[in-house]
Amino acid sequence: MKPGASPKEMARVLKTIKSRGLRTDTMFGEFQNVIGIIGDEKKIDLEFLRSLAGVQEVITIQVPYRLVSRSYISRDIVVKVGGVEIGGDHPPVFIAGPCSIESCEQLHRIGRKVKEAGAQMLRGGAYKPRTSIHSFQGLGVAGLKHLKEVGQDLSMPTVTEVRSEFDVKSVAKFADVLQIGARNMYNQDLLEACAKTKKPILFKRGFSAQIDEYLSFAERIAAHGNKQILLCERGITPLGGSFKPATRFTLDLNAVPLLKKETPFPVITDPSHGTGRRDLVIPMSKASIACGAHGLMIEVHDRPDEALSDAAQALEPQDLARLIKECGEVYRAISR
Amino acid sequence: MKPGASPKEMARVLKTIKSRGLRTDTMFGEFQNVIGIIGDEKKIDLEFLRSLAGVQEVITIQVPYRLVSRSYISRDIVVKVGGVEIGGDHPPVFIAGPCSIESCEQLHRIGRKVKEAGAQMLRGGAYKPRTSIHSFQGLGVAGLKHLKEVGQDLSMPTVTEVRSEFDVKSVAKFADVLQIGARNMYNQDLLEACAKTKKPILFKRGFSAQIDEYLSFAERIAAHGNKQILLCERGITPLGGSFKPATRFTLDLNAVPLLKKETPFPVITDPSHGTGRRDLVIPMSKASIACGAHGLMIEVHDRPDEALSDAAQALEPQDLARLIKECGEVYRAISR
Amino acid sequence: MKPGASPKEMARVLKTIKSRGLRTDTMFGEFQNVIGIIGDEKKIDLEFLRSLAGVQEVITIQVPYRLVSRSYISRDIVVKVGGVEIGGDHPPVFIAGPCSIESCEQLHRIGRKVKEAGAQMLRGGAYKPRTSIHSFQGLGVAGLKHLKEVGQDLSMPTVTEVRSEFDVKSVAKFADVLQIGARNMYNQDLLEACAKTKKPILFKRGFSAQIDEYLSFAERIAAHGNKQILLCERGITPLGGSFKPATRFTLDLNAVPLLKKETPFPVITDPSHGTGRRDLVIPMSKASIACGAHGLMIEVHDRPDEALSDAAQALEPQDLARLIKECGEVYRAISR
Amino acid sequence: MKPGASPKEMARVLKTIKSRGLRTDTMFGEFQNVIGIIGDEKKIDLEFLRSLAGVQEVITIQVPYRLVSRSYISRDIVVKVGGVEIGGDHPPVFIAGPCSIESCEQLHRIGRKVKEAGAQMLRGGAYKPRTSIHSFQGLGVAGLKHLKEVGQDLSMPTVTEVRSEFDVKSVAKFADVLQIGARNMYNQDLLEACAKTKKPILFKRGFSAQIDEYLSFAERIAAHGNKQILLCERGITPLGGSFKPATRFTLDLNAVPLLKKETPFPVITDPSHGTGRRDLVIPMSKASIACGAHGLMIEVHDRPDEALSDAAQALEPQDLARLIKECGEVYRAISR
Repeated sequence: MKPGASPKEMARVLKTIKSRGLRTDTMFGEFQNVIGIIGDEKKIDLEFLRSLAGVQEVITIQVPYRLVSRSYISRDIVVKVGGVEIGGDHPPVFIAGPCSIESCEQLHRIGRKVKEAGAQMLRGGAYKPRTSIHSFQGLGVAGLKHLKEVGQDLSMPTVTEVRSEFDVKSVAKFADVLQIGARNMYNQDLLEACAKTKKPILFKRGFSAQIDEYLSFAERIAAHGNKQILLCERGITPLGGSFKPATRFTLDLNAVPLLKKETPFPVITDPSHGTGRRDLVIPMSKASIACGAHGLMIEVHDRPDEALSDAAQALEPQDLARLIKECGEVYRAISR
Repeated sequence: MKPGASPKEMARVLKTIKSRGLRTDTMFGEFQNVIGIIGDEKKIDLEFLRSLAGVQEVITIQVPYRLVSRSYISRDIVVKVGGVEIGGDHPPVFIAGPCSIESCEQLHRIGRKVKEAGAQMLRGGAYKPRTSIHSFQGLGVAGLKHLKEVGQDLSMPTVTEVRSEFDVKSVAKFADVLQIGARNMYNQDLLEACAKTKKPILFKRGFSAQIDEYLSFAERIAAHGNKQILLCERGITPLGGSFKPATRFTLDLNAVPLLKKETPFPVITDPSHGTGRRDLVIPMSKASIACGAHGLMIEVHDRPDEALSDAAQALEPQDLARLIKECGEVYRAISR
Repeated sequence: MKPGASPKEMARVLKTIKSRGLRTDTMFGEFQNVIGIIGDEKKIDLEFLRSLAGVQEVITIQVPYRLVSRSYISRDIVVKVGGVEIGGDHPPVFIAGPCSIESCEQLHRIGRKVKEAGAQMLRGGAYKPRTSIHSFQGLGVAGLKHLKEVGQDLSMPTVTEVRSEFDVKSVAKFADVLQIGARNMYNQDLLEACAKTKKPILFKRGFSAQIDEYLSFAERIAAHGNKQILLCERGITPLGGSFKPATRFTLDLNAVPLLKKETPFPVITDPSHGTGRRDLVIPMSKASIACGAHGLMIEVHDRPDEALSDAAQALEPQDLARLIKECGEVYRAISR
Repeated sequence: MKPGASPKEMARVLKTIKSRGLRTDTMFGEFQNVIGIIGDEKKIDLEFLRSLAGVQEVITIQVPYRLVSRSYISRDIVVKVGGVEIGGDHPPVFIAGPCSIESCEQLHRIGRKVKEAGAQMLRGGAYKPRTSIHSFQGLGVAGLKHLKEVGQDLSMPTVTEVRSEFDVKSVAKFADVLQIGARNMYNQDLLEACAKTKKPILFKRGFSAQIDEYLSFAERIAAHGNKQILLCERGITPLGGSFKPATRFTLDLNAVPLLKKETPFPVITDPSHGTGRRDLVIPMSKASIACGAHGLMIEVHDRPDEALSDAAQALEPQDLARLIKECGEVYRAISR
């Protein structure tokens, strides 16, 4: 819309779009407002739209994702969770905690240690996506309650994964950020249910998803009016064949500068799942920061031998402290 | 259990297993019964179990899938839907219809033609998993009603995809077989919700899933007591890099003999999605039958230019007739 | 060129093309001749070429492979080796033998058995491409001599792999068909050296090569005037990640109809290397024939436990006999 | 061997090993010598070997690569080329220059600029591995001569790719480091021919090779007594399927810490080929240094629009200067 377009002109445009069975997204800017069209744009005569009063320009975005593209939102989005700000020019944020919440005591003990080590946010799983039905599946609502309690106690905003559409409401009640895991990247109904909670979404890339495809699904979150999206690279599965792979997944750092270029959202990485090996977490964390990541998500356990899941990749708290210190140095080096 | 083990002995074993926080699955055989343990078997002392009255043997299954393995169920499972039988030594079953249900008239028109061509079951999507939120998303419940009506009219059992946990009940009400799509293979909550309906499940392999992983998720269906599973190979995404791939997906026929060896369930293929190209559907259908597939799922549209989705891979009805005829000849050749 | 174009007109066209630093390929047809340009066509003014006497048409081929495309050679090419004809409408040809030539006695013994089983051509490796330098590397020239001797004795044309440019001449001296292995698909100098021998080339697809890329390298063989090319699908490496793959490679049968559509050359498959598992060889052989393969290459060993390489995938001679019989039935079914 | 083992004792051990048809590799250390066995160790009785005079220990290395493993060579290897040292604790080395040598003037012009920007070594291709036979193939020996002349003029050691076994000698005559490209990683005969020149080898990882496989081929270089190996990660091809990939290859930085852990050799990366996009080269270079790379190989062209190959990924000289400065800062940050 033109700067100074009237509310009436704006309403006319919105009504016109909706009358074709399309939905809209509106970005209110300091100087002017932008209206995004959701749906098949062939349903509307763009020339007619262009002719309406108050319309400055009608732009067709060529990529399959529109609402999450830099063409639509040019300025960096900063996601705020409690007092923590992620994205833009803010220093990197560290999200740490155990893979699974095993008990309130365990979460509190580890939470305190990751806070001392410098982490700003607390992670912990209550609903675990597991390959085998015969493994530990998470504590469910009990785990969510522990997460809320520990988060409040330690003044740390919390992140936890939501796996089932049926659990979206309870997760949104107890946690500050809803995580959508890699295996659910394509689960469009879950994405939309999470988006509607208006909570910030930590949205992981699927492990065989191309960047275009990943952003097309982020689009589904944005299309429900939720722009509080943290994009997260967590490893892809590239190598097959004749030998045992040296790493379970391959953390794809190329995604970091690419996503920052294509979209305005903060981009973080998960070197713990992305490599599956404790000894690779620190080097890949430093590399993440060096190529521009806005944050890191790190699995920590103080008694890895007792962990009920993902023990092979969990750092001990003192290693997290070293990781945060070294990443801080890399961040300062690239910010000069 | 030993042949002739008493109900009391069996109850004792079941109780013992459950007392350790594990669940059970029971197969009632003609001569003897078999009890499967669901959960982490380290929680139970197998020696103690072995010592209980009525127990013949305690076997540990090494693969991550137990209930769907040939070690647990050795005889072929035949899935019956309406009058149609799929699996074992039955001739191949052809499931055909449009990608999306676009209207009752469209489904009826195409349904009649695929039936005349020789198809036994009718497919059609009401909830479409789509990469782009800007594309056609399916007719929803209205589509399900069309499917039921047309299926009854033509006396063809029906298959349709369920995408959201919230829709499981309504899909189960209107369709004969619930399809879980490739993008939902890892969606364990959806799998479990579908399993509980006790309807037959057409369970597609994820497009980057290894066989072990695929079967570990089929295990989640079986663990809810549902053994009416149709496994379906629908193409993997193998090739990356420097050139436009010649096919969108790669139908992995190696999966057919492998799955038949590892599990007792019927195995079908979907050459339409598995190749994404009309000109490859017939050769890959014949190849599927030649390596042992129990059935095929084929997309058909009589006006491909008007199709709202997947037009590039839909066969016309006369091509389906040729496909069914030629596959029949291949089937007879391998059955001699 | 126009039908009836004079040799002088043809010479003028050839000279014009060469004067721009380009090379040519000429196809002499029954009615008219076709000239292919090798090199960057931007170096020549196509309008000028079109204006020369005797020129009927100047066609630009859009795919990156020109000389091997159906646009350039529309009719099926039949490759003749000794009395054996492969391609076009000829029934499938079976090429069988041990992975490695271990001794003259071993090759003769196995060769006799595969001939009795119905194989028309004999294979055996003298130069083995091996991942580990610590494994058996092949008998070299001694092996080539055994191959020639046994081939003559049994009246079977022979195929063997050439791995080093330095060995091209000796392999061409002793064997009837030169095989270029999957790992050498990109080895353009080896391809060109083999092409120049004018011997038929069995050219395997690389295990991570897309079809366009594969044909661009086949183009290098054709560009040296050698059109006796057998294309061979031998398995790709698609699946990575978290579990041990169920098969080492994935035989990509989609390649068979695709290659037959794009090029005039015979297409065969290698289910032995393509699956790496003995129990999958027969089903995947039948599937290969069902989707149109012109031949199969099968590893056979009569004492698999003693084989110096690839024992896990070698069939025993009696299994080869069954394979050939069953593939014959599938072939007759699809040829009706 | 024991510290102080006599030359006679050592000779006895070497003779024993060779008498079994095996080859040997000897590492002469400050305090003691180590003998590596090349070939199938089952051919020798390790107990007997252990009993020989002067033998301290007989160790079996479980990985398929022995001579390149940290178990065999524990201390970092530093490769020296002219005055440049790569590996160990040396600061990162920058190898830069054009993709293809197009003329002596072009190479000299670009060479001078990359030297001013801070690069220590000069790269330029004379034999280009190309997918299409219709593209520019390199200047061959003329290019090698330009490389030598410019390298001497600018006092920069030179690197160039050798593609054919027939060219190994002439490349070794003109260049300081022989590069083996990704497409030739499996070309064992080329590897062995290069190893025998005793020149340092820049050995690139194949774009679908797992780490174990890559090192098994590095083993072939080491087994010919050449330990001057620069390992180089240059991008893998992980993503296929339904959309145009955002990057041509995926630079796999996980390989850097992994290779440094498994082997003593210097590890460098090639972000130019590894991403194929100019805008990703600087961020991925900084990430490479942050996770421990010993050097970088960067394509530079001062007139990208005129470049005969790989224009889309070449940096301009002023960008290289920025890259080197910023990487230096990251290096200092991680070295504190």
